[in-house]
Amino acid sequence: LQLLDVPVPIPAANDVLIKVQYAGICNTDIEITKGYMSGFHGIPGHEFIGHVVHATQSSLIGKRVTSEINCYCGTCSYCKNALQRHCPHRTVLGIDKRNGTFAEYVSVPYNTLIEIPSQIPDTTAIFIEPLAAALEILEQIVIRASDSVLLIGDGKLAQLIGLVLQSTQCKLTVLGKHPEKIAVFTNQGIKAVSNDITLSERFDIVVEASGSPDAFIKGLSYVRPRGTVVLKSTYAGTFDFNPVSIVINEITLIGSRCGNLNDAIRFLLKTDLDLSFLISEIIPFERALDAFKKSQEKGVMKIVLSMEAV
Amino acid sequence: LQLLDVPVPIPAANDVLIKVQYAGICNTDIEITKGYMSGFHGIPGHEFIGHVVHATQSSLIGKRVTSEINCYCGTCSYCKNALQRHCPHRTVLGIDKRNGTFAEYVSVPYNTLIEIPSQIPDTTAIFIEPLAAALEILEQIVIRASDSVLLIGDGKLAQLIGLVLQSTQCKLTVLGKHPEKIAVFTNQGIKAVSNDITLSERFDIVVEASGSPDAFIKGLSYVRPRGTVVLKSTYAGTFDFNPVSIVINEITLIGSRCGNLNDAIRFLLKTDLDLSFLISEIIPFERALDAFKKSQEKGVMKIVLSMEAV
Repeated sequence: LQLLDVPVPIPAANDVLIKVQYAGICNTDIEITKGYMSGFHGIPGHEFIGHVVHATQSSLIGKRVTSEINCYCGTCSYCKNALQRHCPHRTVLGIDKRNGTFAEYVSVPYNTLIEIPSQIPDTTAIFIEPLAAALEILEQIVIRASDSVLLIGDGKLAQLIGLVLQSTQCKLTVLGKHPEKIAVFTNQGIKAVSNDITLSERFDIVVEASGSPDAFIKGLSYVRPRGTVVLKSTYAGTFDFNPVSIVINEITLIGSRCGNLNDAIRFLLKTDLDLSFLISEIIPFERALDAFKKSQEKGVMKIVLSMEAV
Repeated sequence: LQLLDVPVPIPAANDVLIKVQYAGICNTDIEITKGYMSGFHGIPGHEFIGHVVHATQSSLIGKRVTSEINCYCGTCSYCKNALQRHCPHRTVLGIDKRNGTFAEYVSVPYNTLIEIPSQIPDTTAIFIEPLAAALEILEQIVIRASDSVLLIGDGKLAQLIGLVLQSTQCKLTVLGKHPEKIAVFTNQGIKAVSNDITLSERFDIVVEASGSPDAFIKGLSYVRPRGTVVLKSTYAGTFDFNPVSIVINEITLIGSRCGNLNDAIRFLLKTDLDLSFLISEIIPFERALDAFKKSQEKGVMKIVLSMEAV
């Protein structure tokens, strides 16, 4: 990871150029610096807000926007079936074959651009992308108020998932690791306990968002027969595994990745949530390398880079 | 594994006593002899047909029957929600806390007894239990005629799964290992190819029934984004695994175990299938130890023990 002077990108034919205002550091960004996307070399970053500075449609200039992170072809069978996020020809902002948002300027395709309604403050809007990833769970499975749900994890994404699960009025329990992060859940009215505790209950649904293979194994032991485990974490490297309990207990395991950013905007408008409590610090862009270090410190939640003074 | 003289079981209050006629050797039986159910000591065997010789209801005497293998409590929340096969208090015929059917006589609870309609010949009826396990897939997921489905495996259970999948009129491909077993599929009008071949297609649904962890990993690589992998195999021991493709491609992985025996009977009555082509040999019970060896030989399908001469 280096901070470099690079030219302002020249937008492709159907792209718009955005001046980045804020960009959040996500665990995926940290994993990328460790080689998670081995083929990727370029500018990371995919959670952001900014303002359009160049576009073919002049009405867009000056708009406060963010962007879907999956940039798709629009013509394949996935795109035609509303599965653009799985387009096999996709590039992914700051993750795969496309420069990202840890920069003063970023170029994104016009068809992925999303205008942010004025009711949503900047310090909440910065969470639109990870909130969409949390909401993706509700697009994949039905969660009823009568369901008992266990969420494993207490990090940035887990906190957003907690809010999304809470909105279903399900019977929610969170297993966290760090006392200060468990307290963040508790402050939101969510029942959260230390993962030192052994639970006697078996849950209808378990969501693993801790990023630990041990938690994945634990999650499988905490779900009831015929229950569902939602996997939001990716892990670096392999681990020892035997899926026998998945078969004997007829568990459904569902992988869950990115969501629809418009769903996140609708959720924020409906709930009027202020997510700024999840920001640990806003750090000027010239201190980006420090910000990356800080975001990996114990107890730190979202670190946001500010390009405003640049 | 030993052949021993043991007393005829004395049926418990709500049990019936059955004189076993035929009992099929299943891969689970072989795994049990290798320690798969480490807590189990007793008589294995769970695929069988026989005749009632003792019952409180005298009308049952002489009936040709088989039995559900999961013997349940009938009062817990699983039993009350039609999930008796997941009753946490269950015993399982020849697998867990209950003697099985590799014996002249077996005692089973009255409420698990199933009478076999006269239209179904003995050499087809012996497959009712594994056929129910194959049909369990259709209870768990919807398979449309438009779905492309890959079945991995060519053994006894895989052959039954092939027939079940074929009945949905889906676009079915089988990946097999042994030429003679691939030919069994082909004889049934099912497209089957050697697993040496690399397929370029990605499938809507993949069913892993080969019993090989490598096939599990391969199955994950052959399913399309947002597709479904049904896991019918259990594996001895752990293996190296990283679920990252499950997350990135948002795969649904579903474990699938036993099915409802009445569903299998309805399926046989509707399709009029003769399953005797899956029997490699019927071996007298006194040669049971040879039969176990034989059932593990290359190219051998179902070995059935006959207790008729005993």
